Amino acid sequence: MEETFVPFRGIKNDLKGRLLCYKQDWTGGLSAGIRILAPTTYIFFASAIPVISFGEQLERNTDGSLTAVQTLASTALCGIIHSLVGGQPLLILGVAEPTVLMYTFMFNFAKDRKDLGHKLFLAWTGWVCVWTALLLFILAILGACSIINRFTRVAGELFGLLIAMLFMQQAIRGIVEEFGIPHRENPEQTALQASWRFGNGMFALVLSFGLLLTALKSRKARSWRYGTGWLRGFVADYGVPLMVLLWTAVSYIPVNDVPRGIPRRLFSPNPWSPGAYSNWTVIKEMVNVPPLYIVGAFIPATMIAVLYYFDHSVASQLAQQKEFNLKKPPSYHYDLLLLGFLVILCGLIGIPPSNGVIPQSPMHTKSLATLKHQLLHNKLVSTARKSISKNSSLSQLYQSMQEAYNEMQTPLVYQLPSTLGLKELKESTVQLASSTSNINAPVDETIFDVDKEIDELLPVEVKEQRFSNLLQALMVGACVAAMPLLKKIPTSVLWGYFAFMAIESLPGNQFWERILLLFTAPGRRYKVLEDSHATSVETVPFKTIATFTLFQTVYLLVCFGITWIPIAGVLFPLLIMLLVPVRQYLLPKFFKSAHLQDLDAAEYEEAPAIAYNMTFEDQERQATATNIDGLEILDEIMTRSRGEIRRTQSPKVSSTTPSSVGDIKPSYSRGIFQNAYSPRISQLRGKNEKGLELKQSPSPGPSTLGQSSRASSSI
Amino acid sequence: MEETFVPFRGIKNDLKGRLLCYKQDWTGGLSAGIRILAPTTYIFFASAIPVISFGEQLERNTDGSLTAVQTLASTALCGIIHSLVGGQPLLILGVAEPTVLMYTFMFNFAKDRKDLGHKLFLAWTGWVCVWTALLLFILAILGACSIINRFTRVAGELFGLLIAMLFMQQAIRGIVEEFGIPHRENPEQTALQASWRFGNGMFALVLSFGLLLTALKSRKARSWRYGTGWLRGFVADYGVPLMVLLWTAVSYIPVNDVPRGIPRRLFSPNPWSPGAYSNWTVIKEMVNVPPLYIVGAFIPATMIAVLYYFDHSVASQLAQQKEFNLKKPPSYHYDLLLLGFLVILCGLIGIPPSNGVIPQSPMHTKSLATLKHQLLHNKLVSTARKSISKNSSLSQLYQSMQEAYNEMQTPLVYQLPSTLGLKELKESTVQLASSTSNINAPVDETIFDVDKEIDELLPVEVKEQRFSNLLQALMVGACVAAMPLLKKIPTSVLWGYFAFMAIESLPGNQFWERILLLFTAPGRRYKVLEDSHATSVETVPFKTIATFTLFQTVYLLVCFGITWIPIAGVLFPLLIMLLVPVRQYLLPKFFKSAHLQDLDAAEYEEAPAIAYNMTFEDQERQATATNIDGLEILDEIMTRSRGEIRRTQSPKVSSTTPSSVGDIKPSYSRGIFQNAYSPRISQLRGKNEKGLELKQSPSPGPSTLGQSSRASSSI
Repeated sequence: MEETFVPFRGIKNDLKGRLLCYKQDWTGGLSAGIRILAPTTYIFFASAIPVISFGEQLERNTDGSLTAVQTLASTALCGIIHSLVGGQPLLILGVAEPTVLMYTFMFNFAKDRKDLGHKLFLAWTGWVCVWTALLLFILAILGACSIINRFTRVAGELFGLLIAMLFMQQAIRGIVEEFGIPHRENPEQTALQASWRFGNGMFALVLSFGLLLTALKSRKARSWRYGTGWLRGFVADYGVPLMVLLWTAVSYIPVNDVPRGIPRRLFSPNPWSPGAYSNWTVIKEMVNVPPLYIVGAFIPATMIAVLYYFDHSVASQLAQQKEFNLKKPPSYHYDLLLLGFLVILCGLIGIPPSNGVIPQSPMHTKSLATLKHQLLHNKLVSTARKSISKNSSLSQLYQSMQEAYNEMQTPLVYQLPSTLGLKELKESTVQLASSTSNINAPVDETIFDVDKEIDELLPVEVKEQRFSNLLQALMVGACVAAMPLLKKIPTSVLWGYFAFMAIESLPGNQFWERILLLFTAPGRRYKVLEDSHATSVETVPFKTIATFTLFQTVYLLVCFGITWIPIAGVLFPLLIMLLVPVRQYLLPKFFKSAHLQDLDAAEYEEAPAIAYNMTFEDQERQATATNIDGLEILDEIMTRSRGEIRRTQSPKVSSTTPSSVGDIKPSYSRGIFQNAYSPRISQLRGKNEKGLELKQSPSPGPSTLGQSSRASSSI
Repeated sequence: MEETFVPFRGIKNDLKGRLLCYKQDWTGGLSAGIRILAPTTYIFFASAIPVISFGEQLERNTDGSLTAVQTLASTALCGIIHSLVGGQPLLILGVAEPTVLMYTFMFNFAKDRKDLGHKLFLAWTGWVCVWTALLLFILAILGACSIINRFTRVAGELFGLLIAMLFMQQAIRGIVEEFGIPHRENPEQTALQASWRFGNGMFALVLSFGLLLTALKSRKARSWRYGTGWLRGFVADYGVPLMVLLWTAVSYIPVNDVPRGIPRRLFSPNPWSPGAYSNWTVIKEMVNVPPLYIVGAFIPATMIAVLYYFDHSVASQLAQQKEFNLKKPPSYHYDLLLLGFLVILCGLIGIPPSNGVIPQSPMHTKSLATLKHQLLHNKLVSTARKSISKNSSLSQLYQSMQEAYNEMQTPLVYQLPSTLGLKELKESTVQLASSTSNINAPVDETIFDVDKEIDELLPVEVKEQRFSNLLQALMVGACVAAMPLLKKIPTSVLWGYFAFMAIESLPGNQFWERILLLFTAPGRRYKVLEDSHATSVETVPFKTIATFTLFQTVYLLVCFGITWIPIAGVLFPLLIMLLVPVRQYLLPKFFKSAHLQDLDAAEYEEAPAIAYNMTFEDQERQATATNIDGLEILDEIMTRSRGEIRRTQSPKVSSTTPSSVGDIKPSYSRGIFQNAYSPRISQLRGKNEKGLELKQSPSPGPSTLGQSSRASSSI
């Protein structure tokens, strides 16, 4: 995206782009049929559970001014509006932890002012929202989002890790509180006696760790050995909601002898109880706020505007990373403008505003990629089977599959139908056919393993549509009505879910993976190279990686520390925005630009790309892919290499330093006694003729390569 | 071992063999130095914890006639005597679950007889022990153990799994009881109120699952990526005792508000309390047992004799499996004779007798193999480094390492020093030297990765000596004195440890692995082939495997069911012994002998071996071995292929059936579109020149093979 600050141009471009595919957003969603429910429920749970819990947190922090009813209502309302008229429908909106923090800071400020106090708190936040919205309008109109490319990996990943830390903090705090007396309860009741509190706390440990461990396991169900493929797929798709159900059921097992209130369950007023409506008329009270405070509201408003500008854009950016191969255009400016309207709307009805959330937004794209893969797979398999049953030759088979594939492509006006996806299939077909028989001979399923072949050749694509977003927002809205049911979920299951969300967001975060690398024993670093890994691990010296990571870690801890400071904590969004200039102007003074480029690619300092096909890594993935089915491959690509440009584009490797490989895999460069390693390398090289060209060999010296290829050719 | 039933011949041979190495048993143990403590403490915990817990179980079942003091005393006494004058010092003795079952059956019989009752129970068991010992003498003298080869895998593994089930049953029962009121306690005390019982139960769940999960993780510490090698090794060696300490410490965290007795801890009388001595004078009361019961004692005595004959021999057999490459001779007959004496001794002082235990005995050998590996490794690495520093050539290096290796070998009178171990090293050295440079050129560490190379080439060897056995028995004895300390361990940690023992005993049990195979989705069975696996998976049709496994499972469940029947349960050892004739005479009527041979190799029906080098599997292990260090490889070899003959000997594959591979890995035989699989196969074939010859290619047809090798040679 070019950086132009001509007023309205960004918004206009966004609208133009998205309007072209608006109709397809709906028809495409409809065509997915019932399968759309898998990503929808997955995101619904990921969205609703934290929002409910943030509601509980807000209720405690604001003496009941805001509850889960308000946070759910905001999330549902903003989600519905955004999915209908928003720009990027992959973006998920919700009340986020930073919003809760900001509202807590504001409440602590307001409650002690005589002329504001508890009563006018919501009215005052209404003014804050008005100012925030104005600032957002200005930012959107002036095209502030066109600097999105300066929000590099450093800032985005640091923010992602901060969110993960806040989630984990909430999980731990929640479990600890299970042992104590909740302050709104009557401490005389049986369930709050010391003995029952001890039991409740221990039960909470069992439930939360049970949920955490089983949910983590269930996400990996596709690679299980046991059970039918259908069951494995079902568990992987719906495992997390299933586990919430399961552990809620478990929480009802100890029913005899155990008093009501053990384990503790969600607490929230029913939406039809009288107290729940006090906030909707906040607009009437806004005139009662003293003028000084109306002006003063501008200070928190700037912070919130900075926060939302950053959070909304980064969430949108993470949902549209390059490796998802999205076909439809982004819409940063227009979405920011719409966010301004949503903030005003929320402010006026006295509910906390929603914005684009991490990690739910990237989770959403990921689950839609899984969906698209299933759809493409089913279509192509049935086409291939039909074709085979007609005794087609390999070339006919390829032809009909290519047609079916094109049919499934989004017919966009501004783009030619892609034939990239099945190119590999054709090549391997032709190549293998020539090595065994005639390409025009009929194929049958014994030589063409339809299921496997198709899975391995399908590119990553995302089912881009608006249905899943709309449906999940409606379901969040339905939660308000279903409150009596939701209240059956034990709070300890929530804490387990928070820990699960924190852990789920870590893989693929290169910052996190570099932290792990620092703790990896030097002798074991070669193992990192054997998995999928960031380019920088191979090209940047270990010391530089360590310094860079330590700097990031200290910065992260400072950000986290600031959220603990009572009222000054309101400044924490500034610190995160500050990372953008720090990255652009300060870091280049301490790190070589080639290293920075590999550690944290930023488009404004792009170096000329060296021809390099990532053969090593790319083929390694394919080598492991022989053991796993298509969706497992997809899981791998998307979680491990999030943000990394792979498979379809050649990544740029710009470092010209002798590389850090020497630090990390000493034995690769040793030449003799390489028999333990060389077969692996020769295997990778051996697949070379599969359409990929090896232009620059990575670290292992040519002697090893020659030797090992000799080894494998001498069979 | 030949089957001769000439009286005393077996005992004489055993004594002759073991006397030759008796002195070396002690000097060899001394030479290991401080490192001997790792296997010693590992086995001490594996031995002491169940014995303490069986003591608790016996105390409950016998109304306090026998306690943990008696079971510990028996284990220590028998262990010390066996380690000093026993035949096979790898065998670990202890009071086992079957003994507890038998004593419970006997108590239930005795307590209701007017002329026997509670008072004469121990005196009566004294007579049972006398009869048992007599029967054991007869069995030992007549050479009954020479039929040890008829105790095939079917019987041994079924027994192993039965023990694992009994352990797991005890773990589950223990945890459930944590929620109830223990019958010996005063139900009025605070800790037994409903509320505290609930808390205690939940705490027990936390502690036992905590111990189970962390202990399982800690055993795999060697393959961790984090921490220094020293730390990883320490955690892997001492992880289980450390975790017992850790979770005992955790159990002391909730100290405020929580009454005494939560969590529940070990209960046992201190050995210096008056009640603990009543049993030592049992010999005086034996004359008071009515003659009818003295004669009647013969019935349980036969059962116990059968049980001990089987259990002792199988435990000894499992501790001396072929893949351990033991250098010293077995001693089945003499050990059975000694067991007779130990049974009499225990009977006369009124404590339950000990016998060879599973899974501790094979665990003991395994931990000594790890020790030997460490010792060999250190010696060879220092030799190699010294040699390199003197600018030696590769051939000199090999020479000095071979000398150091021979030095470390047990100098046995009847055996030539083995040079097998380092043969591979020499071959690969020579081969690689010739491919790069002159064999007489000086080597340096950049081309000879000392640590790695040595680890990968060392054969499995066991530090066979008597020290670890003696020390662990002494430590068990010290437990009697350390009872006040032991009482700090929460019972829930014990239940977790029981579950850990059950799970630890499963890998390598082919019966268990076949059960898992039945539940593996057909599409995933090829994954089994990619790991180490039993020969039978490749050579026996899946249906036959399924039938055989189902038969074994039903038999196992019947055995397990019988232990639940009140007094008739005493017969369960008979059912296990019955498996020997069933295997020999009944099974061959239902299964082809070639299949039986692969499913359950028995020496008496040995088929002529087909030349077959297991290239596929053997090289696969080496391929994975590139990622793991030496002890990890060792772990792999010993747990995965327990009882399987590998690496040093070519296993016999006798099935001539078209093999079940078609059932299991359909895509292997499909020819075209094999690119996903073929590189892997070509990789394996590619290592062929490493001294192994491929005489008979496994299932993948020659076309695939040819094609893939062509593929890799066309780089």
